[in-house]
Amino acid sequence: MARIVVKFGGTSVATVERIRQAARHVKREVDAGHEVAVVVSAMSGKTNELVDWVNEASPLHDAREYDAVVASGEQVTAGLMAIVLSEMGIQSRSFAGWQVPIQTNDAHGAARITEIDPTELDKRLSDGWVPVITGFQGISPHGRITTLGRGGSDTSAVAVAAAVKADRCDIYTDVDGVYTTDPRIVSKAQRLTKISFEEMLEMASLGAKVLMIRSVEMAMAYKVRLLVRSSFDDPDAPQVAPDGSPGVPGTLVCDEDEIMEKQIVSGVTLAKAEAKITLRDVKDNPGVAAEIFGTLADQGIIVDMIVQNVADDGATTDITLTVPDREYDKAIKTIKDAGDRIEYARISGSKGGAKVSVVGVGMRSHAGVASSMFKALADKGINIQLITTSEIKTSVLIDEQYAELAVRALHTYYGLDKKGV
Amino acid sequence: MARIVVKFGGTSVATVERIRQAARHVKREVDAGHEVAVVVSAMSGKTNELVDWVNEASPLHDAREYDAVVASGEQVTAGLMAIVLSEMGIQSRSFAGWQVPIQTNDAHGAARITEIDPTELDKRLSDGWVPVITGFQGISPHGRITTLGRGGSDTSAVAVAAAVKADRCDIYTDVDGVYTTDPRIVSKAQRLTKISFEEMLEMASLGAKVLMIRSVEMAMAYKVRLLVRSSFDDPDAPQVAPDGSPGVPGTLVCDEDEIMEKQIVSGVTLAKAEAKITLRDVKDNPGVAAEIFGTLADQGIIVDMIVQNVADDGATTDITLTVPDREYDKAIKTIKDAGDRIEYARISGSKGGAKVSVVGVGMRSHAGVASSMFKALADKGINIQLITTSEIKTSVLIDEQYAELAVRALHTYYGLDKKGV
Repeated sequence: MARIVVKFGGTSVATVERIRQAARHVKREVDAGHEVAVVVSAMSGKTNELVDWVNEASPLHDAREYDAVVASGEQVTAGLMAIVLSEMGIQSRSFAGWQVPIQTNDAHGAARITEIDPTELDKRLSDGWVPVITGFQGISPHGRITTLGRGGSDTSAVAVAAAVKADRCDIYTDVDGVYTTDPRIVSKAQRLTKISFEEMLEMASLGAKVLMIRSVEMAMAYKVRLLVRSSFDDPDAPQVAPDGSPGVPGTLVCDEDEIMEKQIVSGVTLAKAEAKITLRDVKDNPGVAAEIFGTLADQGIIVDMIVQNVADDGATTDITLTVPDREYDKAIKTIKDAGDRIEYARISGSKGGAKVSVVGVGMRSHAGVASSMFKALADKGINIQLITTSEIKTSVLIDEQYAELAVRALHTYYGLDKKGV
Repeated sequence: MARIVVKFGGTSVATVERIRQAARHVKREVDAGHEVAVVVSAMSGKTNELVDWVNEASPLHDAREYDAVVASGEQVTAGLMAIVLSEMGIQSRSFAGWQVPIQTNDAHGAARITEIDPTELDKRLSDGWVPVITGFQGISPHGRITTLGRGGSDTSAVAVAAAVKADRCDIYTDVDGVYTTDPRIVSKAQRLTKISFEEMLEMASLGAKVLMIRSVEMAMAYKVRLLVRSSFDDPDAPQVAPDGSPGVPGTLVCDEDEIMEKQIVSGVTLAKAEAKITLRDVKDNPGVAAEIFGTLADQGIIVDMIVQNVADDGATTDITLTVPDREYDKAIKTIKDAGDRIEYARISGSKGGAKVSVVGVGMRSHAGVASSMFKALADKGINIQLITTSEIKTSVLIDEQYAELAVRALHTYYGLDKKGV
């Protein structure tokens, strides 16, 4: 018997019929003897409707009122889910964030969870009840309703799982797991059975939009095992793991220690439409990088890759950064407008780059991953423009036209084409 | 300077544009130096959408979950109203029922307000804030969201007005006041400047569907003066009373003492499609009436008029009652099915009756109102089938085809055709 928190996203609860389908997944787990708590998002489309009304009421609205309005969406789903579960013979009741309570700070619209009182949930779970909790929201120190910002329901689910010491947090979504790469690019992309938190973080931030980064960070911090699985599977079909063995379907995101056979590389990710900007002969003073990136951040420009070489002559250096193609012109203008605050000789750049990354905790213990990656790309005649590395990830910027070729080549090179990775 | 609670119904807040119009009424009162609290219903149509979802989820749903889902509608309107008011430069914030808190019993779906803590609202009002409170809902002793049942927002408004000791509770609705009779029947129907609580109660229960009976009862009990007025009036136009003098538009429902010149009759009401059922020679035993009406109530049949004469021979009596036409067959069957429990000789009846009533506190001090009413009807050749009376009301059942003729005749007879009654 395990204790499981299951979370359903907006598309999984878009209609009462979908809620019923989701509830059958819950029932399967309850019937298997598990203790289950449910976290729900708003019905898909509802949050947008509410946000539109708020903006129509006033573009400059009080964030606390925004939260009061928008949080109503999850309240509806939680009540409906509790009703459907009860009809299936499962003892269930809904909890709004303030009823648990899920305490947050008062950063309305983007609040952070500060504490969850597990007492009531714990008692209900032990008594065989299925509590249904509104995702995405909590209550501020001043007793006002807060929301956690878009995608906050994943975070709610992980936080609840941590609070009630759940064995697992199942994220039901519209994909059936985490893949080695984008199946639209590489037809042989394989669903992973397990992936470490660190890898998932790199995958998530590199464009595998399965989980919100914030929820993965929290899961890693509190050691909450996450299972990514599809809510559209037949709830009553035999449960089969991605490698074909009986077990939980979907991809388990867990501590590295739980993964016996570590792949050197777990996945290959791709982000297109990356523009590079190079500043030549930047005065190599302390604070120069802070000045450049602070100026860009002030304009809301999100910088991705950053490369700076050691200054050759000890006085100037070259700095290259990448931004989304659509931000290219604005970024160039922002840097030029900064005037004397950033001293450099020349600025140049171009749009149309693609960032290809290989991710894997195995890299830590395997030397030469980077060089083998460069070789694999060279074999296909692909020129590398930029390189950045982290402990478990190596990324290169290449010309966008070679993006898919590069991904396929690396996917094959690291042995990810075969089933059961 | 007065303290006013204003309430907007569903049609008055059906869109953000309507909410803005409603807010301008609030602003006018604030600008006039009044302290104003607002109570809102859900956007018209929203409650039905939520109720439909609940019923789709399960026809046999937990009433507590029904309440959690359905109460979300007012939460949305309250937030939007607070945003719109803030944009107009008025300090405002929303309060959900549980935030005030508005304490209720735990009769979910039809809860009764037990207590309202005025502390926070009082403080906000004194500080010049406009609190916006969700109508229709509260919090149970177990910390669950409750709803008051359909039309409960009027009751919420009156309860809030009583709690904060408001000078007046303004009910903004889609009609501009209370009329002497239905203007669709009598073109000369006049809008009343004032009407007493007692009269309003009789008018409300007799089909003038302007205010929920329950809210009028509460207003009478707590001496909360109610103003019924239209939310579709131009908020910035000069304020003119129904009699043409400057003052508050709409009809004030207040204590009898506040009404200087008491009309003998304040209004004429009509309810059509009333069926009468007569039981002949009913055994005149104690409990026989309880048996008949208990049996009907068990079947959910709402009885309107009840007439019982003194038993002629001391052993049997005739009892006549009226029910809506659509309940006629069911009522007859229910009584017949009761078998020995109700002893009577014969049962008869017919559909197609109309109940016409004259209402007025002046009746108390004026003898002969009933007889003059009967004479007025006789003059038009209208036969009276049944008569019931209360202290301030006389009702007769007549053939439905004479209904409008009777109403017009009585309206003229009691001098209600002239302006400024």
